[in-house]
Amino acid sequence: MRKFLAVTALLLSTTAAFADPALEQKLDAAINPAEMGAWLKFLSSEPSQVGSPFNKTIAEWTLAKFKSFGWDAHIETYQVLYPTPLAESVELIEGKTVFKATLNEPWTKETPKPKDKWLPSYVAYQGDGDVTAPLIYVNYGMKEDYEALERMGISVKGKIVIARYGQGWRGLKPRLAQEHGAVGCLIYSDPRDDGYSAEEVYPKGPARPPGGFQRGSVQDITISSGDPLTPGFVAGPGKPRLTREAAPNILKIPTLPISYADARVFLAKLNGQVVPPSWRGSLPITYHAGPSTAEVHLKVKSDWSLKPVYDVIAKIEGSTYPDQWVIRGNHHDGWVFGATDPQSGHIAVLAEAKAIGEMVKAGWKPKRTLIYTSWDGEEPGLLGSTEWVEDHAAELKAKTVLYINSDVNARGFLSASGSQDFSAFVGRAAASVIDPETKVSVDQRLRAKLRMGPFDPAVKEKDEAKAVAKAAADPSTVVPIEALGTGSDYTGFLQHLGIPSLDLGYNGEAVWAGVYHSIYDSYDHHSRFVDPGFVYDALLAKTAGRMVLAAADTELPLQQPEAFADSVALYVKQVKKLADDKREAATIQAGLLKDHVFRLIADPTKSSGDPKALAAVPAIDFTPLETASDRVSAAAKAYEFALTEHGKALSPAKREQLQKLMLTLDQTLAPEDGLPGRPWYKHLIYAPGRQTGYGVKTLPGVREGIEEERWDEAVRYISITARALNAYAARLDAATELLTAP
Amino acid sequence: MRKFLAVTALLLSTTAAFADPALEQKLDAAINPAEMGAWLKFLSSEPSQVGSPFNKTIAEWTLAKFKSFGWDAHIETYQVLYPTPLAESVELIEGKTVFKATLNEPWTKETPKPKDKWLPSYVAYQGDGDVTAPLIYVNYGMKEDYEALERMGISVKGKIVIARYGQGWRGLKPRLAQEHGAVGCLIYSDPRDDGYSAEEVYPKGPARPPGGFQRGSVQDITISSGDPLTPGFVAGPGKPRLTREAAPNILKIPTLPISYADARVFLAKLNGQVVPPSWRGSLPITYHAGPSTAEVHLKVKSDWSLKPVYDVIAKIEGSTYPDQWVIRGNHHDGWVFGATDPQSGHIAVLAEAKAIGEMVKAGWKPKRTLIYTSWDGEEPGLLGSTEWVEDHAAELKAKTVLYINSDVNARGFLSASGSQDFSAFVGRAAASVIDPETKVSVDQRLRAKLRMGPFDPAVKEKDEAKAVAKAAADPSTVVPIEALGTGSDYTGFLQHLGIPSLDLGYNGEAVWAGVYHSIYDSYDHHSRFVDPGFVYDALLAKTAGRMVLAAADTELPLQQPEAFADSVALYVKQVKKLADDKREAATIQAGLLKDHVFRLIADPTKSSGDPKALAAVPAIDFTPLETASDRVSAAAKAYEFALTEHGKALSPAKREQLQKLMLTLDQTLAPEDGLPGRPWYKHLIYAPGRQTGYGVKTLPGVREGIEEERWDEAVRYISITARALNAYAARLDAATELLTAP
Repeated sequence: MRKFLAVTALLLSTTAAFADPALEQKLDAAINPAEMGAWLKFLSSEPSQVGSPFNKTIAEWTLAKFKSFGWDAHIETYQVLYPTPLAESVELIEGKTVFKATLNEPWTKETPKPKDKWLPSYVAYQGDGDVTAPLIYVNYGMKEDYEALERMGISVKGKIVIARYGQGWRGLKPRLAQEHGAVGCLIYSDPRDDGYSAEEVYPKGPARPPGGFQRGSVQDITISSGDPLTPGFVAGPGKPRLTREAAPNILKIPTLPISYADARVFLAKLNGQVVPPSWRGSLPITYHAGPSTAEVHLKVKSDWSLKPVYDVIAKIEGSTYPDQWVIRGNHHDGWVFGATDPQSGHIAVLAEAKAIGEMVKAGWKPKRTLIYTSWDGEEPGLLGSTEWVEDHAAELKAKTVLYINSDVNARGFLSASGSQDFSAFVGRAAASVIDPETKVSVDQRLRAKLRMGPFDPAVKEKDEAKAVAKAAADPSTVVPIEALGTGSDYTGFLQHLGIPSLDLGYNGEAVWAGVYHSIYDSYDHHSRFVDPGFVYDALLAKTAGRMVLAAADTELPLQQPEAFADSVALYVKQVKKLADDKREAATIQAGLLKDHVFRLIADPTKSSGDPKALAAVPAIDFTPLETASDRVSAAAKAYEFALTEHGKALSPAKREQLQKLMLTLDQTLAPEDGLPGRPWYKHLIYAPGRQTGYGVKTLPGVREGIEEERWDEAVRYISITARALNAYAARLDAATELLTAP
Repeated sequence: MRKFLAVTALLLSTTAAFADPALEQKLDAAINPAEMGAWLKFLSSEPSQVGSPFNKTIAEWTLAKFKSFGWDAHIETYQVLYPTPLAESVELIEGKTVFKATLNEPWTKETPKPKDKWLPSYVAYQGDGDVTAPLIYVNYGMKEDYEALERMGISVKGKIVIARYGQGWRGLKPRLAQEHGAVGCLIYSDPRDDGYSAEEVYPKGPARPPGGFQRGSVQDITISSGDPLTPGFVAGPGKPRLTREAAPNILKIPTLPISYADARVFLAKLNGQVVPPSWRGSLPITYHAGPSTAEVHLKVKSDWSLKPVYDVIAKIEGSTYPDQWVIRGNHHDGWVFGATDPQSGHIAVLAEAKAIGEMVKAGWKPKRTLIYTSWDGEEPGLLGSTEWVEDHAAELKAKTVLYINSDVNARGFLSASGSQDFSAFVGRAAASVIDPETKVSVDQRLRAKLRMGPFDPAVKEKDEAKAVAKAAADPSTVVPIEALGTGSDYTGFLQHLGIPSLDLGYNGEAVWAGVYHSIYDSYDHHSRFVDPGFVYDALLAKTAGRMVLAAADTELPLQQPEAFADSVALYVKQVKKLADDKREAATIQAGLLKDHVFRLIADPTKSSGDPKALAAVPAIDFTPLETASDRVSAAAKAYEFALTEHGKALSPAKREQLQKLMLTLDQTLAPEDGLPGRPWYKHLIYAPGRQTGYGVKTLPGVREGIEEERWDEAVRYISITARALNAYAARLDAATELLTAP
């Protein structure tokens, strides 16, 4: 175990209670890091992927735990499409010499020795295939990488590509390869990104060893999450299913991750142009773009049968508002042992459930209904949570006050993202817990980090970072939380149903990416490198637990919409600037093309043609969006003022009316329209980017319309999004009227 | 030989003659790339460092060549301090295990097999020493690297440091190490910077092979260049000399370059904190800061005797203005074979001299005196050129119209730097030669590159780049050439005497840095990778040759001072902004320190203390500088207008008066004051930075005063620099008066 250095006493701070102080004390007292560590050790002792024996064991064990904590718990099972490998191989063929990639990771003595077999190299929902072709290196395999390749005169058509992990979501790499005509895709993690360049490798240090690789899903959850055969409805007996061929988010080409020990052999065989500096990793070779004269043979065949996912659902009925639900969840399935992903978050859920169970046994009754969930099948595509959300959609929309998610937990700073009208709620919770490393409140530490934002070389938008830093320096100012894309179980709640959601976790200090989705994400790794002493796992339970306690009992609505209004105003500014910047860039580039500038500066010993001409950007009228954003700002201000003035004095009847108005407030942002080409995604303010994968795009209908040069679509979504914002403002106005009516 | 790709006919452009068109034709016809290649092959067939047998051979061969071309030529010899290694070793000692670094480079069959021994791993003017100490990695060994180490709690006091080449001049690395208390210094080239990450390594490709290293000088030529024992005066019999101990620009600690094959072994032994991402190279190891538990034993002993340097000086007397000199030069000494450095430039000088000799034989007489020079001892510290300049200072100041230097030549874009009142002169020369790759004029190609400046991620000052791009897009606008620091033989002329100087070379396309100052800088390397067919070496001769022809015969002065005025105005803006930015940074940092922000964001498993508090910046009055800059702008405008209007109609007597006024115009910028702490450097507009080495600092007295927080000095140099600029403007006004007087 690593020892923290001494912390200066200077920095000690006091915290303000958030929920009922007596309950907070009980919560903190009941959370036992050692016990959580023991749970994590058990939960990560065998591979826990969907369909594995231990996956079911975990569900049953979790069910038993909830019950023993005093919760009313049960398992809901869904039969979903989940492929597993039947046969796979990757070979490098050079005349008669064949090099075979090792598609399994070397075991180390620090890793559990399981009874069950773990999943070899694999990504779920790829295509079956048996292809042989030359190889091309496509860097991170993102859109701009293909543009660079095109300028080099290199096409991936009919080729197999090798991409490195990073920059964008895993599934984009084979999807873009497929769209560009590649017949197969290999993915490896360059040691520059999370191997020996980042840290000593496991087991000596936390980084990726040469034989490690990243499993994962390539289901395109930017279209919809859950069972790909049942988008938008629950997977159940007698329910319709798409055929596999018709499912838009299943990949067609075979794809496998390989280790960097193997990738080195493949990359060393590439010929052609040396790649640009930003494409170079830190393998001791010269990186070329290819193609190779040697051929790669890639074969994958999967078992496409349905498998069960087991969601564990635990409930404590509310005493005053049983039809107002506070939901808390984390998934329980891993790719292999899953110590950090997902068990670090899962043990927080369990610790909270235990603490709350004890309070209830001691006589406390939450006013609202609490639902604790342990999702299955998150890894392949948020299967368990999405099917459950689709199954119970109407009831969830009618009753859910807030969904609080967690997943991976590490060490460092609170990362809280989600519905930004809950920013003040998050801020107050963060101000009520103490950071174990610095002994100041989590809020104070986070504000310190935000103050450094303008000096972070990774931060591009300096003006925005400066505004955030300024707000962070004043502890009385609410700093908006980050917006959410996708990547964990909040997606069904937030993006599909419009239910306000938060995603919580501590991170920023542990080097962890190198074991992500590998067999080395183990108890040993988590307890030595990610969260020694399980202090941050315990802190997550204290943080989320406080939010649940506050949400359970607070009489007045939780939203403080001004932070949301501020964020929307910023996003509107951004999309306007995006259009202006693209317009300017197209004008400048047209001049450069006309004067042959790209050809004049090109080195003729390297191929590099003109870039593709940028589309001219028409004038776009953002007025409807600006007007709506202003209206939200005004309504938010008036509502917060009215709530402060009149909230406490409200009669019980009026209070219940107010609660009702505000419970579905956020759903006004997710009307039936849905997003262009992906109607499953209803939320008009937050969505995962089609071209970023997990990463969020705010005002997605408008922003992606501009980014991808579908101008009519952008114009249409200016109007649709404005309508939703106006509905949000109107709802706030109604609440204000209720508050201020005599 | 590499074949250039086909060039689009579209791009063909016409050029405007610069000098006399008939002379230009003769020049071009006389320049023979094949002959130049043969010269280069001979000149790079043996090691040519100072004191070596072949060094003298080259001087004598060059003398003979000049004579055979019809020039009046002789050799001037100076006896200068030039150390050579007597004994040296680098060992890594771990208990009883000793690893010895290989201090010689592996020969390859593509490299010449010389009769003479070449210099092993060595840097000239380091200290003698025999030290044993733990090792610390200091990244590039620059000022900010030591600040980062201090925050990590790491001191180099009593340790040996290992720095990688790059970011700043070689000599800064041991100097800063010495200033921080280190007892020794190793320097290696990381393969990320110019080894296998950049390109395939030699002999397969152009980049640095694992056994290669970079020799060089660590004489601190930012204080003065030339023989370090005779700063400011010529090294000659009967002349005074400093003792070695008293020479401020000789290093005290031992320093050796090692190969990256060896560096890997040393770096792998470092313990302690993993270094920040920007410090990581691409050796397949985890880079730690150290210290090492293993110890490094470093021993260097040098022979400190005087050695001869042989400058070859060739002359053709001017027919009309014999006391107006046009000087052209390139050095002839290398570190080993020196094919690219310096012979690529040296053969251009020879080709020009041959062509001019033929013209003279055919009857042409230059109006001005031409002096062609082949310098010795450039590599150790501009020894030959500096001693010659110091020897002939008064005559040179009285007679020199322009010094045109070259050194390394490669492939790509014209890089022309120097006295910016010669920008238009350079631009017109560049417009008169055709780029062999694109078939447009060199000027047109350069403008294309400048137009892409704003899109170059390496360019930090986007607003300045945009202004340059805008100017470059209009072919009628003069784009100021770059300012000069140091690093080649123009320094004595420009910085010490104030004589207008230009430095020319083609570059930007060849991967060359990896063989710089190594045995692999060979004929084979130059002809395969740097300039196949010697077409750019020939182009350099055509470009510089045109300038010499024009400068030899043009009746009117060569300066067009508006571009200089524009540059000065920009530099004044920059130093003002520098002060403002530093003031703002200090204020922001004070707030962050007060609120313990650095400690709150620190990962307690890593040492990282508060950064050193930035000094508060007082109010600084830039008015004298701004006023002087405005005066230069007005005077330049008036002069150029008057020259255009009245220049051609000037009487011979008045013309000679004008020539006289303008010949020493630029020397007004280099009055006796000199720069703070380095009075040898007289030029108040251009100097090498004390903390950058070769890199230029414009308005150095002011800029470095602010950068290094010597506020009084900055204020003093605002006044001194303004005085010089006013003198420059007054001289222009006098010329204008002469032009416009009836």
